[in-house]
Amino acid sequence: MTDDREPVAVGIDVGGTKLVAAGVDRDGLVGARIREETPAGDPDQLMAALAAIVADLGGSGLPVGLGIAGIVDAAGVLRYGANLDVRDFDVGPRLQALTGRPVTVVNDATGAVWGEVQAGAGRGVDDVVMFTLGTGVGGGVVVGGSIVEGSQGFAGELGHLIVEEGGRRCPCGNRGCLEAYSSGTAVALRARARIADEAVSSSLQGHDDLTGKAVAEAALAGDRFAVEMLEEAGRWLGVGIATVVNALDPARILVGGGASIRSASFMLPPAREVMRERLLGGDQRTPPEVVEAELSDDAGMVGAGLLAAERA
Amino acid sequence: MTDDREPVAVGIDVGGTKLVAAGVDRDGLVGARIREETPAGDPDQLMAALAAIVADLGGSGLPVGLGIAGIVDAAGVLRYGANLDVRDFDVGPRLQALTGRPVTVVNDATGAVWGEVQAGAGRGVDDVVMFTLGTGVGGGVVVGGSIVEGSQGFAGELGHLIVEEGGRRCPCGNRGCLEAYSSGTAVALRARARIADEAVSSSLQGHDDLTGKAVAEAALAGDRFAVEMLEEAGRWLGVGIATVVNALDPARILVGGGASIRSASFMLPPAREVMRERLLGGDQRTPPEVVEAELSDDAGMVGAGLLAAERA
Repeated sequence: MTDDREPVAVGIDVGGTKLVAAGVDRDGLVGARIREETPAGDPDQLMAALAAIVADLGGSGLPVGLGIAGIVDAAGVLRYGANLDVRDFDVGPRLQALTGRPVTVVNDATGAVWGEVQAGAGRGVDDVVMFTLGTGVGGGVVVGGSIVEGSQGFAGELGHLIVEEGGRRCPCGNRGCLEAYSSGTAVALRARARIADEAVSSSLQGHDDLTGKAVAEAALAGDRFAVEMLEEAGRWLGVGIATVVNALDPARILVGGGASIRSASFMLPPAREVMRERLLGGDQRTPPEVVEAELSDDAGMVGAGLLAAERA
Repeated sequence: MTDDREPVAVGIDVGGTKLVAAGVDRDGLVGARIREETPAGDPDQLMAALAAIVADLGGSGLPVGLGIAGIVDAAGVLRYGANLDVRDFDVGPRLQALTGRPVTVVNDATGAVWGEVQAGAGRGVDDVVMFTLGTGVGGGVVVGGSIVEGSQGFAGELGHLIVEEGGRRCPCGNRGCLEAYSSGTAVALRARARIADEAVSSSLQGHDDLTGKAVAEAALAGDRFAVEMLEEAGRWLGVGIATVVNALDPARILVGGGASIRSASFMLPPAREVMRERLLGGDQRTPPEVVEAELSDDAGMVGAGLLAAERA
């Protein structure tokens, strides 16, 4: 990475509260990030903000990639936006008309997986599955070097692998989904319940608004109960990983997302152990690597930009 | 389908007890099947039998596709044969040397899925997942029109989706795998256990060696308890289907295999119902179709042959 890198695209991560954008190439970000508030309630203002970012970063004609939480169709229409609270918003075609650039729109988790595969922890292998741990659990699947988007753009919802039929209640309304065991929210709920029910010895006791982040920080500070909570979430992650590996046999599993940053060192060893126990054909195969993602919050931007560059 | 169809390949299903072979084209079998005992213990005899079949059916140079239970690598070597009890058997290269034809070797379930996608119930869609119900539960995954074989050839082991962590013991040694709930074997075990433990009213009582086939036949004859056993297995199948659909969003799910032939009418309605309940984004999406496979035992032969024709 030298100073004379030229971006091949503009990558923009359209979050519910923030727009983050930068030039990208196959090594990641090129130049500084732009950060702005997302004008979330007003599509016209959002389009104007996006066009201004493209004018600022887009040089003389770079393609533009947007990553957005929600369901995106092949025409670049956001059919349903989880954070923006919109339906059938033709963000891609409109930005293309406003800027004259080729615009590619993808689901944010799909973008993140693609970023990791092209420029992060997934480099060098063609079959990759990524789990993103945060408030919920998301993910993405790459088969034969291509992202699996699914027949309706719903693929990669790995938080809703069912790991225990009839088990814990999931925010999606069902029971037993991986998200109800391995998200930051799930870790916090479980820690609160254990503290309320049992004589637990932990620095987390008396914590008013216990979050997954607080559990991870306590674990890093040596709190044994907090470590136990993360290891339990890691074992459940291992069950989900085993299910995916039995179905798809990827070469590498990536674990990323905001909740993994502080907790991966506690969650990944038990996840690997449970995965190995559960794989079919144990002694006939090499288990896939299970590694931390590398690009952190930049993954979606990088992946959306690189997809735009490929498709331009 | 007219009488002047010309086969494009020879398809051979190499089972543990039987070899079945025929000419195939994009509409399925062309001409009659050949059926022989498999010389299972003797690789040289097996090679001679396969070469004789090719001489008989292979016209003036048709490519040859073999479907075999086990792990097959890209060079056509059977690394581990589930039925033939062999390791690292170079069946593909040897048959190619013996016959002078291009030879393609695939896992039998992979062949069956490809047969259904090309010439059966999967025609017309690019993203298909197939579950095969028999003694065990197998499967295959097609994404974007291509079979997913996985980084080591282990993909498609859908019987080992974990649907209930810590649940019923599976023949693979783990607990809670779909196979332990929805295979013919699982249905029979469950029926026997219920009959032993409870005052069940069923024609299956006193049955000496209760099989999945016997349960299905009793259900077809109107036995309410047998119907209940198949519906329960169908609900578990629905959990496995939901997990796969949340991960991959296929357009169509196929259910085939020997145990599905008599039981599909009982298993598929509850499977569809449970799948719909468990899908993420319920009202935003059209659930995939869940339909019976069409080619029955011919699927593997047809698929292996058509793969050989494509690759020749």
